[in-house]
Amino acid sequence: MRTIKLTIEYDGTNYSGWQIQPNGLAVQQVIEEALERLLGEVVRLRSSGRTDAGVHARGMAAAFTTHRDLPLRAFVEGTNRFLPADIAIIDANEVRAGFKPIGDALAKHYRYTILLSPVRSPLHRFHAWQVKERLDLKAMGEALPAFEGRHDFAAFRASNCVAKTTVRRIDSVTMRQEDGFLFIDVVGEGFLKNMVRVMVGTLVDIGKGRFAPDHIAWLLQNRDRKKAGVTAPACGLCLMKVFYPLDGRDEDESIFQPAAF
Amino acid sequence: MRTIKLTIEYDGTNYSGWQIQPNGLAVQQVIEEALERLLGEVVRLRSSGRTDAGVHARGMAAAFTTHRDLPLRAFVEGTNRFLPADIAIIDANEVRAGFKPIGDALAKHYRYTILLSPVRSPLHRFHAWQVKERLDLKAMGEALPAFEGRHDFAAFRASNCVAKTTVRRIDSVTMRQEDGFLFIDVVGEGFLKNMVRVMVGTLVDIGKGRFAPDHIAWLLQNRDRKKAGVTAPACGLCLMKVFYPLDGRDEDESIFQPAAF
Repeated sequence: MRTIKLTIEYDGTNYSGWQIQPNGLAVQQVIEEALERLLGEVVRLRSSGRTDAGVHARGMAAAFTTHRDLPLRAFVEGTNRFLPADIAIIDANEVRAGFKPIGDALAKHYRYTILLSPVRSPLHRFHAWQVKERLDLKAMGEALPAFEGRHDFAAFRASNCVAKTTVRRIDSVTMRQEDGFLFIDVVGEGFLKNMVRVMVGTLVDIGKGRFAPDHIAWLLQNRDRKKAGVTAPACGLCLMKVFYPLDGRDEDESIFQPAAF
Repeated sequence: MRTIKLTIEYDGTNYSGWQIQPNGLAVQQVIEEALERLLGEVVRLRSSGRTDAGVHARGMAAAFTTHRDLPLRAFVEGTNRFLPADIAIIDANEVRAGFKPIGDALAKHYRYTILLSPVRSPLHRFHAWQVKERLDLKAMGEALPAFEGRHDFAAFRASNCVAKTTVRRIDSVTMRQEDGFLFIDVVGEGFLKNMVRVMVGTLVDIGKGRFAPDHIAWLLQNRDRKKAGVTAPACGLCLMKVFYPLDGRDEDESIFQPAAF
């Protein structure tokens, strides 16, 4: 029995999110069906976590077990033949038995993209949040470091989030402005439901002058969701990468030639 | 009677191109109908040129005349209320009577985006040409300068192109590799049908070793379309900007605050 870890890119626009649920089409379901067509056996994917409806991924991680003796390339190219244009397997690795996509993850990297523009942009409508108001980027930059470290993020989650503990470790939050976009990169061990989106929404409210930069530290202490900012739209969010420890071989080594051509 | 110049961004994926034609929905038609709803009068848009089906624009230029005494902002924000999410007016300027969007243009800037990857990318499927083979970027870079200057581009056009003269001036062709993408920027006074796409297709064929770098100079001399490369797909092409001389006031000055927030 082999355990195969897949790295998956998808455009979440037309899906109800990663996880299979009663209503709407889930990314997980589409990939499981493609793998079943390729392998001729029932496949159950376990992922590094869920993504909400409309959220994208450049590097979702998911694993499954199989008896089939195919080369790793076939799990990529073969599966992609059965996948729609908005989902693709971009890498495959064999990992040790018992590999746990959630439990073994060291950290995740999310990127949130804001379009800084008074007019909407048709070319970026599915992959950025357009903010029309002028933002005080200096105030936002001052607010960022308060997120870093181990904190109680109870104020930064969906009202229907059911996580038992709300303490999470955030390794870094950085902000970069380029070509009219503002990219907010968040790396952390794990995330509550909507956590990145509420973090970004609160930062934007700081940028609009609704809150002072030190409001982040106050929220981490006072844990009151109602005092945090808006939930930024799903379309601006992308799961960039899930980090795992090396596992016998270098899992970060793609089966393909490196991207540098 | 006022003459209004619009700057237009669109995602060309779902359109049959800029120009109104018997089959399919044209970008021009959608904008004319939106303007007519806003202004309550018949509107005929003249543009700086056509774009093919599936080609995008960040800065298409088009002009029309109107009796309506609206502020410039209204031509942007008012029209956008009647436009679908994949088309937007991003700027409006008043120009002198007799302004000719084609005849007065000094130059146009097109960008072609190539995704250098052995696996397809769902997130960029509508806005880049994926090239799986490893490309010799050095050979492509050596080939570029041959395009610059005034040349006969008869070899670099669609077989059904009906232009009377095939001599065009190309001001610059540059190439930049970044994050797994290859961007090819072309600035020139005017372009034959499919010209940029055949230029890019030929460059990629040089990158694949099908032609030597000096094949460009040979094609410009021999004018044989059959000896040029493939026509690169429409989805990778974007009309970035149309340049016009200053016209009393600085037309490049947006009515909006500059993008630098």
